[in-house]
Amino acid sequence: MEYETPKGMRDFLPEEKILRDEVVALLKETFELYGFNPIETPALEEYKTCVAKFGAGEEADVMQELFSLEDRAGRKLGLRFEMTFPLARVIANNPQLAKPFKRYAMGPVWRNGPIKLGRYREFWQADVDVVGTSELSADAEMLALAETVFGELGLDITIKVNNRKILNGMMESCDIAEKLQDSVIITIDKLNKIGIEGVTKELKEKGIGTDSISKLLKLIQLKGNAKQITAMLKSELRNEISGEGIAEINVLFEYLKEFGVKNAELDVSLARGLSYYTGTIFEVFMKEGELKSSIASGGRWDNMIQKFAGLDKPIPAVGISFGVDVICDVLKLQKKKEVKKSVVTVYVIPIGTLKESIAIMQKLREAGINTDFDMNGKGISKNLEYANKQGIPYVVIIGPKELKEDSVMLKDMKKGEEKKVKISELGKVLKK
Amino acid sequence: MEYETPKGMRDFLPEEKILRDEVVALLKETFELYGFNPIETPALEEYKTCVAKFGAGEEADVMQELFSLEDRAGRKLGLRFEMTFPLARVIANNPQLAKPFKRYAMGPVWRNGPIKLGRYREFWQADVDVVGTSELSADAEMLALAETVFGELGLDITIKVNNRKILNGMMESCDIAEKLQDSVIITIDKLNKIGIEGVTKELKEKGIGTDSISKLLKLIQLKGNAKQITAMLKSELRNEISGEGIAEINVLFEYLKEFGVKNAELDVSLARGLSYYTGTIFEVFMKEGELKSSIASGGRWDNMIQKFAGLDKPIPAVGISFGVDVICDVLKLQKKKEVKKSVVTVYVIPIGTLKESIAIMQKLREAGINTDFDMNGKGISKNLEYANKQGIPYVVIIGPKELKEDSVMLKDMKKGEEKKVKISELGKVLKK
Repeated sequence: MEYETPKGMRDFLPEEKILRDEVVALLKETFELYGFNPIETPALEEYKTCVAKFGAGEEADVMQELFSLEDRAGRKLGLRFEMTFPLARVIANNPQLAKPFKRYAMGPVWRNGPIKLGRYREFWQADVDVVGTSELSADAEMLALAETVFGELGLDITIKVNNRKILNGMMESCDIAEKLQDSVIITIDKLNKIGIEGVTKELKEKGIGTDSISKLLKLIQLKGNAKQITAMLKSELRNEISGEGIAEINVLFEYLKEFGVKNAELDVSLARGLSYYTGTIFEVFMKEGELKSSIASGGRWDNMIQKFAGLDKPIPAVGISFGVDVICDVLKLQKKKEVKKSVVTVYVIPIGTLKESIAIMQKLREAGINTDFDMNGKGISKNLEYANKQGIPYVVIIGPKELKEDSVMLKDMKKGEEKKVKISELGKVLKK
Repeated sequence: MEYETPKGMRDFLPEEKILRDEVVALLKETFELYGFNPIETPALEEYKTCVAKFGAGEEADVMQELFSLEDRAGRKLGLRFEMTFPLARVIANNPQLAKPFKRYAMGPVWRNGPIKLGRYREFWQADVDVVGTSELSADAEMLALAETVFGELGLDITIKVNNRKILNGMMESCDIAEKLQDSVIITIDKLNKIGIEGVTKELKEKGIGTDSISKLLKLIQLKGNAKQITAMLKSELRNEISGEGIAEINVLFEYLKEFGVKNAELDVSLARGLSYYTGTIFEVFMKEGELKSSIASGGRWDNMIQKFAGLDKPIPAVGISFGVDVICDVLKLQKKKEVKKSVVTVYVIPIGTLKESIAIMQKLREAGINTDFDMNGKGISKNLEYANKQGIPYVVIIGPKELKEDSVMLKDMKKGEEKKVKISELGKVLKK
């Protein structure tokens, strides 16, 4: 082919796009059920906005994956690689917005990364955030929202929850040097993927002492419900920062009960790679199946907006991001959604009756029935083959003989049954 | 502000985004009613795909308005500036797609153009096309679709229709040199904006002779219904190409009758700037109001796909593009849609009853009612002010006294009325 999609990017033909649209509609409906309002920001942001949230050392890494460009006046721009920093900019630009500000945003993001199996350079995110409250009821609501979303999608999930402050307390208590803490947290986060041995090996390579490693491993393998684990942590850790994290986790799990959340569990090995999280963190995983990576994730990010707004105190925020592409993939694999090839309900085949058929078709559309017709005069058998291939459930054949009796032939493509129906009754019959 | 949106690009806060979402949902629903299936293509295309449809001379102009960039391997890319050429690529890449292929695509497009009032560098298009039929019933269906869309939106519109072949016949008949024809057509297209005098002046400046100008002006001012105008054209023009165009217009208007289209009229001064149209062309205008530019437009583009697919014969196509931004602007101006500041239906105010309130709120959400709550303990009057400012229609106040009676206070914010409602009845009462 001479003209292809850019590397790492895809077309979605009807069969895939119909499913994506259904998922997006369900997300939108559920976000609004939870009182979140939609916003939209541009795909492009100024370059300096793209890099604002990163520390000086991190900027180079971002640059690697940023699609950057210039406008005609030479202003440096970048394609957004996530929805969080644009929200921070919106909040900074609009101090008039009443807080807490509950918003969602859905759309593509772009990352100019290396091409790997299952990694795309354009993919959709659906982000939900509350800005302007540090109340843990907001954190709990995020998990309730996730549980409702995946319940509606028919997917069995587990929500793993932790708190950055507990992780920080663990680092302190295990005498991990501050400059190594982020790196150690990244290793801990791999527990489910590389196991105890893998984690031990990586920590040794990073120069962590044997005592620290064994204490760490004991901590991150604590089992039980949230109450039991936090009680054990309390007696093991005994520093201020972990005390705060433990208290937050306990309040959060109280709220989760009120929200009716059933699938959340405390997992102190959960770390989340991103350094901007400040409190609650969580990831949503499939209960069963091959997929090891998360299908939604988020946490509290209390400090980022302050940077954008140039304020002297933080504007707290908590949010969740749903991976639209991975959710669609799981639904297809689990066959939880009927894969439709076409949105069409009725396909009209005129047999030398094009004009009359058009009028009948327009009546069906007025009645709210998705209707298409043969405009090329293909003949009955070719047309039936086409409707069948497209998975269109009903066909209406309009010949001159039936027309004389103010009737048409209605064919149920699944059952293979045919019956004569009065034109005046057709809409009613199809609506059933 | 330190961080702003890029020049020519905008944020859509809830008040605007809710309206846009409603318009997009209505477009989607109507497109599907007419049997069009959704597809999605990447925002980025290879640079060579972006310029493929243009002649060698035109490429420089496009370059000017193309946001171009490179991926990490140095491959040249561009942000799509319309939805048509990506469709041509999709058709070329997917010969398996059954024809006619009816698709719609909605999303942003980007043009790195000069900044003017009302011109944006990122704006939404909603495109609907049929690929693989030259039947004029397909052209007629596009106009029927437009009429249904604007009828549903409550906007009074006129659809102006013409045919490229009639324009070409006029050029021939008025002895306009071939290299001047495109330029003359662009001037003719301005008749409604600059009037007869303006058109005469421009044509003189372009070196068109007095006889040609007076003949042209007579032709483009022909008045009457489609039948009358085509009859007059027939006797005036008398060349093969205009004969074809006239025949097509007559067949089209016959079909329009069957489709029930009431607001289409033939306007032989309608030209459409783009050179890739091959037959029917049309533009949708507001019947009244200030807006002189069109809010939807399209036509037949039979030759473009052939270029992309490298075929030796054309794949005919006809389509329409709706300007989502201008439609939203008109709706706001005409107040045809209620401007909602929030999607929330009920706002819950707990008075020292946060946990019980959360449980009640979750029940409302389960019943499909968009519900939000005060998580910051703001107190009644501040909360009522907030709900009022957001235009939230109902507030539920949950105090300990009411709770003892298994009740809450329900306040209708528009009527200012308050009543005590049993918790078990609340969902039912609000659903009404």
